[in-house]
Amino acid sequence: MRNMMITIEYDGSAYNGWQIQPNGKSIQEEIIKALRVITKQNISVHGAGRTDAKVHAYGQCASFKVDCSIPTEKFSAAINSQLPEDIVVKETVEKDPGFHARFSAAGKQYEYKICNQKYRSAINRNYKWHVSKPLDLEQMKHAVNLIPGTHDFSQFMASGSDVKDTVRNITRAEIVAGKARGHFSIIFEGNGFLYKMVRMLVAAIVEIGMHKSTTEELYARLTQQTNCTNRWTAPPQGLYLNKVYYKGEEFNLDTPGSMV
Amino acid sequence: MRNMMITIEYDGSAYNGWQIQPNGKSIQEEIIKALRVITKQNISVHGAGRTDAKVHAYGQCASFKVDCSIPTEKFSAAINSQLPEDIVVKETVEKDPGFHARFSAAGKQYEYKICNQKYRSAINRNYKWHVSKPLDLEQMKHAVNLIPGTHDFSQFMASGSDVKDTVRNITRAEIVAGKARGHFSIIFEGNGFLYKMVRMLVAAIVEIGMHKSTTEELYARLTQQTNCTNRWTAPPQGLYLNKVYYKGEEFNLDTPGSMV
Repeated sequence: MRNMMITIEYDGSAYNGWQIQPNGKSIQEEIIKALRVITKQNISVHGAGRTDAKVHAYGQCASFKVDCSIPTEKFSAAINSQLPEDIVVKETVEKDPGFHARFSAAGKQYEYKICNQKYRSAINRNYKWHVSKPLDLEQMKHAVNLIPGTHDFSQFMASGSDVKDTVRNITRAEIVAGKARGHFSIIFEGNGFLYKMVRMLVAAIVEIGMHKSTTEELYARLTQQTNCTNRWTAPPQGLYLNKVYYKGEEFNLDTPGSMV
Repeated sequence: MRNMMITIEYDGSAYNGWQIQPNGKSIQEEIIKALRVITKQNISVHGAGRTDAKVHAYGQCASFKVDCSIPTEKFSAAINSQLPEDIVVKETVEKDPGFHARFSAAGKQYEYKICNQKYRSAINRNYKWHVSKPLDLEQMKHAVNLIPGTHDFSQFMASGSDVKDTVRNITRAEIVAGKARGHFSIIFEGNGFLYKMVRMLVAAIVEIGMHKSTTEELYARLTQQTNCTNRWTAPPQGLYLNKVYYKGEEFNLDTPGSMV
Protein backbone atom coordinates (compact mmCIF):
# COMPACT_ATOMS: atom_id res chain seq x y z
CA MET A 1 0.00 0.00 0.00
CA ARG A 2 1.32 3.47 -0.86
CA ASN A 3 0.78 6.31 1.62
CA MET A 4 -0.15 9.48 -0.27
CA MET A 5 -0.52 13.09 0.84
CA ILE A 6 -2.51 15.62 -1.21
CA THR A 7 -2.63 19.40 -0.83
CA ILE A 8 -6.06 20.79 -1.67
CA GLU A 9 -7.49 24.24 -2.50
CA TYR A 10 -11.24 24.67 -2.19
CA ASP A 11 -13.95 27.29 -2.29
CA GLY A 12 -16.10 26.26 0.67
CA SER A 13 -19.12 28.37 -0.33
CA ALA A 14 -21.21 25.45 -1.58
CA TYR A 15 -20.21 22.91 1.08
CA ASN A 16 -21.24 21.97 4.61
CA GLY A 17 -17.57 21.78 5.52
CA TRP A 18 -14.65 19.39 5.12
CA GLN A 19 -16.07 16.40 6.96
CA ILE A 20 -18.29 13.80 5.36
CA GLN A 21 -21.79 13.81 6.80
CA PRO A 22 -25.19 12.21 6.19
CA ASN A 23 -26.83 15.40 4.92
CA GLY A 24 -25.21 17.96 2.65
CA LYS A 25 -22.11 18.14 0.49
CA SER A 26 -18.61 17.87 1.97
CA ILE A 27 -15.17 18.29 0.48
CA GLN A 28 -13.98 15.00 2.00
CA GLU A 29 -16.79 13.12 0.26
CA GLU A 30 -16.00 14.71 -3.12
CA ILE A 31 -12.39 13.54 -2.78
CA ILE A 32 -13.41 10.02 -1.74
CA LYS A 33 -15.77 9.86 -4.75
CA ALA A 34 -13.01 11.05 -7.12
CA LEU A 35 -10.57 8.47 -5.69
CA ARG A 36 -13.18 5.75 -6.08
CA VAL A 37 -13.51 6.54 -9.79
CA ILE A 38 -9.78 6.58 -10.52
CA THR A 39 -8.75 3.65 -8.26
CA LYS A 40 -11.95 1.54 -8.11
CA GLN A 41 -11.38 1.38 -4.33
CA ASN A 42 -13.15 2.74 -1.28
CA ILE A 43 -10.46 4.80 0.39
CA SER A 44 -10.37 6.42 3.84
CA VAL A 45 -9.17 10.01 3.49
CA HIS A 46 -7.81 11.79 6.61
CA GLY A 47 -7.76 15.61 6.59
CA ALA A 48 -5.23 17.63 8.59
CA GLY A 49 -8.14 19.50 10.16
CA ARG A 50 -11.84 20.01 9.74
CA THR A 51 -13.09 23.22 8.23
CA ASP A 52 -16.65 24.39 8.86
CA ALA A 53 -19.36 25.14 6.29
CA LYS A 54 -18.39 28.00 3.94
CA VAL A 55 -14.77 28.08 5.18
CA HIS A 56 -12.15 27.99 2.39
CA ALA A 57 -8.71 26.43 2.04
CA TYR A 58 -5.70 27.28 -0.05
CA GLY A 59 -3.70 24.46 1.51
CA GLN A 60 -5.70 21.77 3.30
CA CYS A 61 -3.75 18.51 3.46
CA ALA A 62 -5.09 14.97 3.49
CA SER A 63 -3.51 11.52 3.52
CA PHE A 64 -4.73 8.08 2.45
CA LYS A 65 -3.40 4.60 1.73
CA VAL A 66 -3.94 3.19 -1.71
CA ASP A 67 -2.90 0.19 -3.76
CA CYS A 68 -2.73 1.49 -7.33
CA SER A 69 -0.22 2.00 -10.14
CA ILE A 70 -0.93 5.65 -11.02
CA PRO A 71 2.47 7.40 -10.95
CA THR A 72 2.73 10.03 -8.21
CA GLU A 73 3.38 12.83 -10.71
CA LYS A 74 0.10 12.00 -12.52
CA PHE A 75 -2.00 11.58 -9.39
CA SER A 76 -3.14 15.22 -9.01
CA ALA A 77 -4.33 15.45 -12.62
CA ALA A 78 -6.16 12.14 -12.29
CA ILE A 79 -8.07 13.22 -9.17
CA ASN A 80 -8.72 16.72 -10.58
CA SER A 81 -10.35 15.20 -13.67
CA GLN A 82 -13.07 13.87 -11.31
CA LEU A 83 -13.41 16.84 -8.95
CA PRO A 84 -15.87 19.75 -9.27
CA GLU A 85 -14.43 23.12 -10.30
CA ASP A 86 -14.48 24.49 -6.73
CA ILE A 87 -12.03 21.84 -5.45
CA VAL A 88 -8.53 21.25 -6.83
CA VAL A 89 -5.61 19.05 -5.76
CA LYS A 90 -2.48 21.22 -6.04
CA GLU A 91 0.11 18.57 -5.24
CA THR A 92 0.43 14.85 -4.49
CA VAL A 93 3.45 13.35 -2.74
CA GLU A 94 4.19 9.82 -1.55
CA LYS A 95 5.10 9.68 2.16
CA ASP A 96 6.56 7.20 4.61
CA PRO A 97 4.10 4.54 5.88
CA GLY A 98 3.84 6.26 9.29
CA PHE A 99 2.74 9.65 7.93
CA HIS A 100 -0.78 10.85 8.81
CA ALA A 101 -2.10 14.25 7.61
CA ARG A 102 -3.60 15.00 11.02
CA PHE A 103 -1.33 13.31 13.55
CA SER A 104 1.91 14.33 11.80
CA ALA A 105 0.90 18.00 11.51
CA ALA A 106 3.18 20.38 13.43
CA GLY A 107 1.15 23.54 12.85
CA LYS A 108 -1.22 25.47 10.63
CA GLN A 109 -1.59 28.91 9.09
CA TYR A 110 -5.05 30.48 8.96
CA GLU A 111 -6.01 33.78 7.35
CA TYR A 112 -9.17 35.72 8.14
CA LYS A 113 -10.21 38.35 5.55
CA ILE A 114 -12.24 41.42 6.43
CA CYS A 115 -13.58 44.27 4.34
CA ASN A 116 -14.45 47.30 6.43
CA GLN A 117 -16.71 49.55 4.39
CA LYS A 118 -20.09 51.18 4.70
CA TYR A 119 -21.86 49.38 1.86
CA ARG A 120 -22.03 45.59 1.76
CA SER A 121 -19.64 43.82 -0.57
CA ALA A 122 -20.98 42.30 -3.80
CA ILE A 123 -17.83 40.72 -5.22
CA ASN A 124 -16.37 39.57 -1.89
CA ARG A 125 -19.65 38.52 -0.23
CA ASN A 126 -18.59 34.84 -0.02
CA TYR A 127 -14.89 35.53 0.57
CA LYS A 128 -14.56 38.19 3.29
CA TRP A 129 -16.41 39.31 6.40
CA HIS A 130 -18.09 42.64 5.72
CA VAL A 131 -17.91 44.94 8.77
CA SER A 132 -19.81 48.16 8.20
CA LYS A 133 -18.96 50.01 11.44
CA PRO A 134 -15.67 51.93 11.48
CA LEU A 135 -12.78 49.92 12.95
CA ASP A 136 -9.90 51.33 15.01
CA LEU A 137 -7.06 49.50 13.31
CA GLU A 138 -4.45 50.73 15.80
CA GLN A 139 -6.34 49.24 18.76
CA MET A 140 -6.79 46.02 16.79
CA LYS A 141 -3.04 45.81 16.19
CA HIS A 142 -2.41 46.19 19.92
CA ALA A 143 -4.90 43.38 20.56
CA VAL A 144 -3.37 41.08 17.95
CA ASN A 145 0.06 41.53 19.54
CA LEU A 146 -1.24 39.96 22.78
CA ILE A 147 -2.01 36.65 21.11
CA PRO A 148 1.37 35.03 20.26
CA GLY A 149 2.65 32.78 23.00
CA THR A 150 1.45 29.74 24.92
CA HIS A 151 -1.99 30.29 26.43
CA ASP A 152 -4.95 28.34 27.66
CA PHE A 153 -7.44 29.26 24.92
CA SER A 154 -10.42 27.62 26.64
CA GLN A 155 -12.38 30.90 26.39
CA PHE A 156 -11.89 30.76 22.62
CA MET A 157 -13.35 27.32 22.03
CA ALA A 158 -16.92 26.77 20.91
CA SER A 159 -19.05 24.13 22.54
CA GLY A 160 -19.32 20.84 20.70
CA SER A 161 -15.68 19.89 21.15
CA ASP A 162 -14.45 17.18 23.52
CA VAL A 163 -10.86 18.45 23.61
CA LYS A 164 -9.39 18.31 27.15
CA ASP A 165 -6.06 20.11 26.73
CA THR A 166 -6.89 23.65 25.71
CA VAL A 167 -3.33 25.04 25.81
CA ARG A 168 -1.96 26.03 22.40
CA ASN A 169 1.17 27.81 21.23
CA ILE A 170 0.51 30.61 18.74
CA THR A 171 3.68 31.68 16.94
CA ARG A 172 2.24 34.45 14.78
CA ALA A 173 -0.75 36.78 14.86
CA GLU A 174 -0.58 39.74 12.54
CA ILE A 175 -2.78 42.19 10.67
CA VAL A 176 -1.79 42.48 7.01
CA ALA A 177 -3.17 45.36 4.93
CA GLY A 178 -4.90 44.55 1.65
CA LYS A 179 -4.44 46.46 -1.60
CA ALA A 180 -7.76 48.25 -1.29
CA ARG A 181 -8.64 50.66 1.49
CA GLY A 182 -10.56 48.98 4.30
CA HIS A 183 -9.53 45.47 3.23
CA PHE A 184 -7.19 43.53 5.47
CA SER A 185 -6.37 40.08 6.80
CA ILE A 186 -5.52 38.68 10.20
CA ILE A 187 -2.97 35.86 9.93
CA PHE A 188 -2.59 33.20 12.62
CA GLU A 189 0.05 30.50 12.89
CA GLY A 190 0.41 27.99 15.68
CA ASN A 191 0.86 24.39 16.65
CA GLY A 192 -2.86 23.81 16.92
CA PHE A 193 -6.24 25.50 17.07
CA LEU A 194 -9.34 24.70 19.12
CA TYR A 195 -12.83 24.41 17.62
CA LYS A 196 -13.75 27.85 16.14
CA MET A 197 -10.75 29.41 17.94
CA VAL A 198 -9.69 31.60 15.00
CA ARG A 199 -13.21 32.91 14.42
CA MET A 200 -13.66 33.65 18.15
CA LEU A 201 -10.30 35.45 18.32
CA VAL A 202 -11.25 37.48 15.23
CA ALA A 203 -14.60 38.42 16.81
CA ALA A 204 -12.80 39.56 19.98
CA ILE A 205 -10.31 41.63 17.94
CA VAL A 206 -13.10 43.25 15.91
CA GLU A 207 -15.02 44.08 19.11
CA ILE A 208 -11.93 45.94 20.29
CA GLY A 209 -11.77 47.71 16.90
CA MET A 210 -15.38 48.81 17.44
CA HIS A 211 -14.54 50.04 20.99
CA LYS A 212 -17.02 47.52 22.41
CA SER A 213 -14.24 45.73 24.26
CA THR A 214 -10.65 46.43 25.31
CA THR A 215 -7.20 44.92 24.99
CA GLU A 216 -7.28 44.52 28.79
CA GLU A 217 -10.35 42.30 28.50
CA LEU A 218 -8.68 40.21 25.81
CA TYR A 219 -5.57 39.86 27.98
CA ALA A 220 -7.72 38.76 30.92
CA ARG A 221 -9.42 36.14 28.76
CA LEU A 222 -6.06 34.82 27.51
CA THR A 223 -4.67 34.60 31.05
CA GLN A 224 -7.77 33.12 32.71
CA GLN A 225 -8.26 36.19 34.92
CA THR A 226 -11.88 36.46 33.82
CA ASN A 227 -14.49 34.01 32.73
CA CYS A 228 -16.04 35.79 29.81
CA THR A 229 -19.27 34.23 28.63
CA ASN A 230 -19.04 36.09 25.33
CA ARG A 231 -18.91 33.45 22.65
CA TRP A 232 -19.25 35.72 19.62
CA THR A 233 -17.88 34.07 16.49
CA ALA A 234 -16.87 35.78 13.23
CA PRO A 235 -18.74 34.42 10.19
CA PRO A 236 -17.23 31.50 8.29
CA GLN A 237 -16.75 32.98 4.79
CA GLY A 238 -13.75 35.11 5.85
CA LEU A 239 -11.69 32.13 7.03
CA TYR A 240 -9.01 30.34 4.97
CA LEU A 241 -6.82 27.38 5.96
CA ASN A 242 -3.72 28.58 4.13
CA LYS A 243 -1.17 25.95 5.00
CA VAL A 244 -0.46 22.89 7.13
CA TYR A 245 3.09 22.57 8.42
CA TYR A 246 4.74 19.17 8.94
CA LYS A 247 7.79 18.25 11.00
CA GLY A 248 10.97 19.49 9.37
CA GLU A 249 9.19 22.34 7.54
CA GLU A 250 9.98 25.93 8.38
CA PHE A 251 7.08 28.14 9.34
CA ASN A 252 7.17 31.03 6.93
CA LEU A 253 5.65 34.40 6.24
CA ASP A 254 4.06 33.57 2.88
CA THR A 255 0.33 33.99 2.58
CA PRO A 256 -0.45 31.53 -0.20
CA GLY A 257 -3.09 32.51 -2.72
CA SER A 258 -4.20 35.52 -0.73
CA MET A 259 -6.76 37.68 -2.47
CA VAL A 260 -6.64 40.55 0.06
CA MET B 1 -36.85 65.92 -12.33
CA ARG B 2 -33.68 65.16 -10.36
CA ASN B 3 -30.64 63.83 -12.22
CA MET B 4 -28.97 61.11 -10.16
CA MET B 5 -25.69 59.26 -10.52
CA ILE B 6 -25.05 55.92 -8.81
CA THR B 7 -21.75 54.04 -8.40
CA ILE B 8 -22.23 50.29 -8.52
CA GLU B 9 -20.18 47.23 -7.55
CA TYR B 10 -21.21 43.90 -9.03
CA ASP B 11 -20.11 40.32 -9.34
CA GLY B 12 -20.81 39.63 -13.02
CA SER B 13 -20.56 35.82 -12.70
CA ALA B 14 -24.31 35.19 -12.89
CA TYR B 15 -25.17 37.84 -15.51
CA ASN B 16 -25.15 38.14 -19.28
CA GLY B 17 -23.56 41.56 -18.92
CA TRP B 18 -24.53 45.09 -18.02
CA GLN B 19 -27.01 45.75 -20.79
CA ILE B 20 -30.66 44.79 -20.64
CA GLN B 21 -31.57 42.10 -23.17
CA PRO B 22 -34.51 39.89 -24.10
CA ASN B 23 -32.88 36.67 -22.84
CA GLY B 24 -30.84 36.32 -19.70
CA LYS B 25 -30.18 38.40 -16.62
CA SER B 26 -28.51 41.82 -16.81
CA ILE B 27 -27.27 44.21 -14.17
CA GLN B 28 -29.08 47.15 -15.84
CA GLU B 29 -32.39 45.30 -15.57
CA GLU B 30 -31.89 44.51 -11.89
CA ILE B 31 -31.31 48.21 -11.21
CA ILE B 32 -34.35 49.27 -13.25
CA LYS B 33 -36.47 46.73 -11.34
CA ALA B 34 -35.17 48.01 -7.99
CA LEU B 35 -35.88 51.62 -8.99
CA ARG B 36 -39.39 50.63 -10.09
CA VAL B 37 -40.12 49.20 -6.64
CA ILE B 38 -38.83 52.19 -4.70
CA THR B 39 -40.13 54.99 -7.02
CA LYS B 40 -43.15 53.33 -8.70
CA GLN B 41 -41.74 54.67 -12.00
CA ASN B 42 -40.24 53.11 -15.12
CA ILE B 43 -36.85 54.76 -15.28
CA SER B 44 -34.26 54.76 -18.06
CA VAL B 45 -30.84 53.97 -16.60
CA HIS B 46 -27.71 54.92 -18.59
CA GLY B 47 -24.47 53.12 -17.75
CA ALA B 48 -21.05 54.67 -18.28
CA GLY B 49 -20.11 51.65 -20.35
CA ARG B 50 -21.29 48.15 -21.10
CA THR B 51 -19.59 45.21 -19.50
CA ASP B 52 -19.81 41.75 -21.08
CA ALA B 53 -21.14 38.56 -19.52
CA LYS B 54 -19.13 37.49 -16.43
CA VAL B 55 -17.20 40.79 -16.30
CA HIS B 56 -17.17 42.47 -12.85
CA ALA B 57 -17.24 46.08 -11.67
CA TYR B 58 -16.01 47.79 -8.52
CA GLY B 59 -17.05 51.17 -9.86
CA GLN B 60 -19.55 51.16 -12.74
CA CYS B 61 -21.49 54.43 -12.90
CA ALA B 62 -25.01 55.03 -14.15
CA SER B 63 -27.31 58.05 -14.35
CA PHE B 64 -31.08 58.44 -14.50
CA LYS B 65 -33.75 61.12 -14.12
CA VAL B 66 -36.33 60.63 -11.42
CA ASP B 67 -39.18 62.53 -9.83
CA CYS B 68 -39.22 61.33 -6.23
CA SER B 69 -38.76 62.60 -2.70
CA ILE B 70 -36.23 60.05 -1.37
CA PRO B 71 -33.36 62.12 0.09
CA THR B 72 -30.10 61.62 -1.78
CA GLU B 73 -28.32 60.28 1.30
CA LYS B 74 -30.97 57.56 1.69
CA PHE B 75 -31.08 56.60 -2.00
CA SER B 76 -28.32 53.95 -1.97
CA ALA B 77 -29.85 52.08 0.97
CA ALA B 78 -33.29 52.22 -0.65
CA ILE B 79 -32.04 50.71 -3.94
CA ASN B 80 -29.84 48.17 -2.14
CA SER B 81 -32.85 46.89 -0.21
CA GLN B 82 -34.25 45.72 -3.58
CA LEU B 83 -31.05 44.48 -5.24
CA PRO B 84 -29.69 40.90 -5.18
CA GLU B 85 -26.59 40.27 -3.05
CA ASP B 86 -24.21 40.29 -6.05
CA ILE B 87 -25.04 43.93 -6.92
CA VAL B 88 -24.61 46.90 -4.57
CA VAL B 89 -24.95 50.68 -4.99
CA LYS B 90 -21.95 52.20 -3.21
CA GLU B 91 -22.88 55.86 -3.60
CA THR B 92 -25.65 58.10 -4.94
CA VAL B 93 -25.09 61.77 -5.83
CA GLU B 94 -27.37 64.36 -7.42
CA LYS B 95 -25.85 65.94 -10.52
CA ASP B 96 -26.53 68.93 -12.81
CA PRO B 97 -29.33 68.41 -15.37
CA GLY B 98 -26.80 68.06 -18.20
CA PHE B 99 -24.84 65.20 -16.61
CA HIS B 100 -24.93 61.81 -18.38
CA ALA B 101 -23.00 58.80 -17.02
CA ARG B 102 -21.80 57.82 -20.49
CA PHE B 103 -21.41 61.11 -22.39
CA SER B 104 -19.88 63.01 -19.45
CA ALA B 105 -17.26 60.31 -18.77
CA ALA B 106 -13.67 61.49 -19.22
CA GLY B 107 -12.00 58.12 -18.72
CA LYS B 108 -12.07 54.70 -17.13
CA GLN B 109 -9.84 52.40 -15.13
CA TYR B 110 -9.95 48.66 -15.87
CA GLU B 111 -8.09 45.92 -14.05
CA TYR B 112 -7.44 42.46 -15.46
CA LYS B 113 -6.52 39.76 -12.92
CA ILE B 114 -4.41 36.72 -13.78
CA CYS B 115 -3.26 33.75 -11.73
CA ASN B 116 -0.32 31.99 -13.30
CA GLN B 117 0.00 28.55 -11.74
CA LYS B 118 0.15 24.95 -12.88
CA TYR B 119 -3.07 23.74 -11.27
CA ARG B 120 -6.42 25.39 -12.02
CA SER B 121 -7.77 27.79 -9.42
CA ALA B 122 -10.71 26.73 -7.26
CA ILE B 123 -11.29 29.88 -5.18
CA ASN B 124 -10.53 32.38 -7.97
CA ARG B 125 -12.14 30.45 -10.83
CA ASN B 126 -14.76 33.16 -11.47
CA TYR B 127 -12.49 36.10 -10.56
CA LYS B 128 -9.17 35.66 -12.37
CA TRP B 129 -7.88 34.20 -15.61
CA HIS B 130 -5.97 31.01 -14.88
CA VAL B 131 -2.91 30.70 -17.14
CA SER B 132 -1.11 27.38 -16.60
CA LYS B 133 1.89 27.88 -18.91
CA PRO B 134 4.87 29.76 -17.40
CA LEU B 135 4.82 33.49 -18.17
CA ASP B 136 7.87 35.67 -18.77
CA LEU B 137 6.88 38.63 -16.62
CA GLU B 138 9.84 40.78 -17.73
CA GLN B 139 8.82 40.49 -21.39
CA MET B 140 5.23 41.28 -20.43
CA LYS B 141 6.37 44.44 -18.61
CA HIS B 142 8.23 45.57 -21.75
CA ALA B 143 5.05 44.93 -23.77
CA VAL B 144 2.82 46.82 -21.33
CA ASN B 145 5.15 49.84 -21.51
CA LEU B 146 4.39 50.19 -25.25
CA ILE B 147 0.70 50.79 -24.67
CA PRO B 148 0.41 54.26 -23.05
CA GLY B 149 -0.07 57.02 -25.61
CA THR B 150 -2.46 57.87 -28.40
CA HIS B 151 -2.86 54.99 -30.85
CA ASP B 152 -5.28 53.68 -33.42
CA PHE B 153 -6.45 50.57 -31.55
CA SER B 154 -8.45 49.19 -34.51
CA GLN B 155 -6.54 45.89 -34.27
CA PHE B 156 -7.73 45.59 -30.68
CA MET B 157 -11.45 45.89 -31.38
CA ALA B 158 -13.74 42.89 -31.68
CA SER B 159 -16.27 42.70 -34.49
CA GLY B 160 -19.81 43.71 -33.58
CA SER B 161 -19.00 47.35 -32.91
CA ASP B 162 -20.00 50.21 -35.22
CA VAL B 163 -17.44 52.66 -33.81
CA LYS B 164 -15.75 54.70 -36.60
CA ASP B 165 -13.04 56.58 -34.70
CA THR B 166 -10.72 53.94 -33.27
CA VAL B 167 -8.09 56.31 -31.84
CA ARG B 168 -7.87 56.27 -28.04
CA ASN B 169 -5.49 57.81 -25.52
CA ILE B 170 -4.22 55.36 -22.89
CA THR B 171 -2.66 57.16 -19.93
CA ARG B 172 -1.63 54.14 -17.86
CA ALA B 173 -0.85 50.49 -18.49
CA GLU B 174 0.94 48.70 -15.70
CA ILE B 175 1.50 45.26 -14.22
CA VAL B 176 0.88 45.20 -10.48
CA ALA B 177 2.06 42.20 -8.45
CA GLY B 178 -0.43 40.44 -6.22
CA LYS B 179 0.25 39.22 -2.70
CA ALA B 180 0.53 35.58 -3.75
CA ARG B 181 3.19 34.24 -6.08
CA GLY B 182 1.96 34.04 -9.69
CA HIS B 183 -0.99 36.37 -9.07
CA PHE B 184 -0.92 39.79 -10.72
CA SER B 185 -3.08 42.45 -12.37
CA ILE B 186 -2.74 44.54 -15.49
CA ILE B 187 -4.20 48.02 -14.94
CA PHE B 188 -5.40 50.20 -17.83
CA GLU B 189 -6.50 53.82 -17.71
CA GLY B 190 -7.56 55.90 -20.67
CA ASN B 191 -10.09 58.25 -22.15
CA GLY B 192 -12.01 55.42 -23.79
CA PHE B 193 -11.87 51.76 -24.73
CA LEU B 194 -13.10 49.95 -27.85
CA TYR B 195 -15.24 46.81 -27.74
CA LYS B 196 -13.19 44.06 -26.00
CA MET B 197 -10.06 46.22 -26.27
CA VAL B 198 -8.77 45.44 -22.77
CA ARG B 199 -9.27 41.69 -23.18
CA MET B 200 -7.55 41.74 -26.60
CA LEU B 201 -4.61 43.75 -25.23
CA VAL B 202 -4.31 41.31 -22.30
CA ALA B 203 -4.33 38.34 -24.71
CA ALA B 204 -1.55 39.98 -26.76
CA ILE B 205 0.51 40.66 -23.61
CA VAL B 206 0.06 37.07 -22.37
CA GLU B 207 1.09 35.71 -25.80
CA ILE B 208 4.30 37.69 -25.41
CA GLY B 209 4.72 36.26 -21.91
CA MET B 210 4.39 32.75 -23.40
CA HIS B 211 6.99 33.61 -26.10
CA LYS B 212 4.35 33.01 -28.78
CA SER B 213 4.56 36.65 -29.89
CA THR B 214 6.97 39.57 -29.47
CA THR B 215 6.97 43.17 -28.30
CA GLU B 216 7.89 44.09 -31.92
CA GLU B 217 4.67 42.51 -33.16
CA LEU B 218 2.65 44.38 -30.53
CA TYR B 219 4.35 47.64 -31.53
CA ALA B 220 3.55 46.98 -35.20
CA ARG B 221 -0.10 46.35 -34.33
CA LEU B 222 -0.28 49.57 -32.30
CA THR B 223 1.31 51.62 -35.12
CA GLN B 224 -0.62 50.04 -38.01
CA GLN B 225 2.54 48.61 -39.58
CA THR B 226 0.96 45.19 -39.75
CA ASN B 227 -2.55 43.91 -40.17
CA CYS B 228 -2.66 41.15 -37.64
CA THR B 229 -5.68 38.90 -38.03
CA ASN B 230 -5.14 37.50 -34.55
CA ARG B 231 -8.27 38.32 -32.58
CA TRP B 232 -7.55 36.29 -29.46
CA THR B 233 -9.45 37.60 -26.45
CA ALA B 234 -8.70 36.95 -22.78
CA PRO B 235 -11.66 35.39 -20.94
CA PRO B 236 -14.20 37.70 -19.26
CA GLN B 237 -13.94 36.65 -15.60
CA GLY B 238 -10.56 38.37 -15.08
CA LEU B 239 -11.88 41.82 -16.07
CA TYR B 240 -13.03 44.53 -13.64
CA LEU B 241 -14.32 48.03 -14.39
CA ASN B 242 -12.67 49.69 -11.40
CA LYS B 243 -13.59 53.33 -11.88
CA VAL B 244 -15.19 55.87 -14.20
CA TYR B 245 -13.58 59.31 -14.22
CA TYR B 246 -15.61 62.48 -14.85
CA LYS B 247 -14.44 65.93 -15.85
CA GLY B 248 -12.70 67.67 -12.99
CA GLU B 249 -11.60 64.41 -11.36
CA GLU B 250 -7.94 63.48 -11.14
CA PHE B 251 -6.92 60.13 -12.55
CA ASN B 252 -5.27 58.29 -9.70
CA LEU B 253 -3.27 55.23 -8.91
CA ASP B 254 -5.75 53.59 -6.56
CA THR B 255 -7.02 50.18 -7.47
CA PRO B 256 -10.37 50.09 -5.70
CA GLY B 257 -11.44 46.88 -4.04
CA SER B 258 -8.67 44.88 -5.64
CA MET B 259 -8.45 41.27 -4.48
CA VAL B 260 -5.11 40.54 -6.21
